[in-house]
Amino acid sequence: MNKEDFFIEQFSKQTKFIGDDGAVIKDLVYSSDAFFENVHFKKEWMSLKQIAAKAMLVNISDAIAMNARPLYALLTVAIPKDYTQSDLRKLANGFKKVAKEYNIQIIGGDTISNEKLDISITIISKTNNPIYRSGARIGDLVCYTGDLGTCKKDLKKLFKGKKISSKSKFIKPKLKAEFFYEISKYINASLDISDGLFFELQRVSKASKVGFKFFEKIDENIGTSGEEYELLFTFPKKHLEKIMSAAKKHKVPLNIFAKTIKGSFETTFKNHHF
Amino acid sequence: MNKEDFFIEQFSKQTKFIGDDGAVIKDLVYSSDAFFENVHFKKEWMSLKQIAAKAMLVNISDAIAMNARPLYALLTVAIPKDYTQSDLRKLANGFKKVAKEYNIQIIGGDTISNEKLDISITIISKTNNPIYRSGARIGDLVCYTGDLGTCKKDLKKLFKGKKISSKSKFIKPKLKAEFFYEISKYINASLDISDGLFFELQRVSKASKVGFKFFEKIDENIGTSGEEYELLFTFPKKHLEKIMSAAKKHKVPLNIFAKTIKGSFETTFKNHHF
Repeated sequence: MNKEDFFIEQFSKQTKFIGDDGAVIKDLVYSSDAFFENVHFKKEWMSLKQIAAKAMLVNISDAIAMNARPLYALLTVAIPKDYTQSDLRKLANGFKKVAKEYNIQIIGGDTISNEKLDISITIISKTNNPIYRSGARIGDLVCYTGDLGTCKKDLKKLFKGKKISSKSKFIKPKLKAEFFYEISKYINASLDISDGLFFELQRVSKASKVGFKFFEKIDENIGTSGEEYELLFTFPKKHLEKIMSAAKKHKVPLNIFAKTIKGSFETTFKNHHF
Repeated sequence: MNKEDFFIEQFSKQTKFIGDDGAVIKDLVYSSDAFFENVHFKKEWMSLKQIAAKAMLVNISDAIAMNARPLYALLTVAIPKDYTQSDLRKLANGFKKVAKEYNIQIIGGDTISNEKLDISITIISKTNNPIYRSGARIGDLVCYTGDLGTCKKDLKKLFKGKKISSKSKFIKPKLKAEFFYEISKYINASLDISDGLFFELQRVSKASKVGFKFFEKIDENIGTSGEEYELLFTFPKKHLEKIMSAAKKHKVPLNIFAKTIKGSFETTFKNHHF
């Protein structure tokens, strides 16, 4: 077991809240995500505005995957000592741009001086129908949005010192909020793909106690590409047409690649950030 | 203006929520605080359990100062790569001990691998009567709890490589929760003393648009000692006896050192973490 999982296990035995993209309490969902320099990004890879925007988006992605609409954000930002006022303005603009786009109010947080840029965000969202990882039922179809694999490729390029497009999903995740809210009533289980499809499938398997029958072999480059922030979800077959029609309306590519069966699924690949 | 304040200003113009120890939304209070290695502590100074406990306590202190009872916590913990399972257990125990003491449920967060131990906590609290920094009225008495100055002294000792007592407030803040909840109905303005009395008084002055008439000169060592996590509050004179009696009951030393007057107060000392 890796250290992160071991640490989380120290708490998860004592609470029913841990184990999803967010913790649901009444009609609110709470989710926190760290976005740290040299852990999630290197400063040469993205502008300060892009860094702040991505930090927000990866948190909002959690809310969407729980079928919750983000309302408020708390930003804890550790700022390198050498940042200028212009740097700080760019950083703030990244947070504000995404907050505006998703109608989120920034209500507080903490700001400190540090060696590197480390961002922690808590998002408070609202839902009337939270969707959990544990909701998959035997016979569900299993689907992910968009395409997978480009983030892994782009990350490789960055490590080789090459440039990538500012339109790369690694720079700016493409969330599918409105599509997902629309189909949410048909969904049994969902989560976002932050650690790679195989790893997320393992999470669904563990939480829902199901295995998967894959319709085709999934390429390693697709199954292990992290930071994609696409949605992975399962739904009863009878809702297929409604979901396909919503996908068409919102121009969201769908990949229905498996169905849930009795059994379990474990990936042989390791979960890793770079 | 320092960088932290400049950064916060980028957001505070657009929202009414920023400017107190926590953000109040309906009957909930949200507060986030960072507790970072080499910013707020050095690992030689405290055990891992003490570090985790203090990270929780400084956050709970914000809730108390707003007259809110903490309910839930989200922990974002960046863990050095060389930590053993035993280290992680100690760290987790520090969080859990304080959570239990204050009846807080740890509902989630994020765990990542990092160069140093950086903790960000969000606490969700409940209040029926939030107390703000902006509530002070002309003629209020101004008071702080406990004694001030030892944290500055202890911090100096630590920087000289000396040991300090494990009972030092710098290691374990002594919060006055039950006392403060009991007197809260008599209080006009409150906040906790994290950056030193003079700096907190400046915050009250700015938020409440008042100055202070000091009954005696306050020593620099008292006025500039940070990380005290004592309570600073103002109240109408007519409630003095009830507050004194509650202080006696809870064995909380009170220092009534000023009254609020027309005017403003600015400290000439700088706000600084070490």
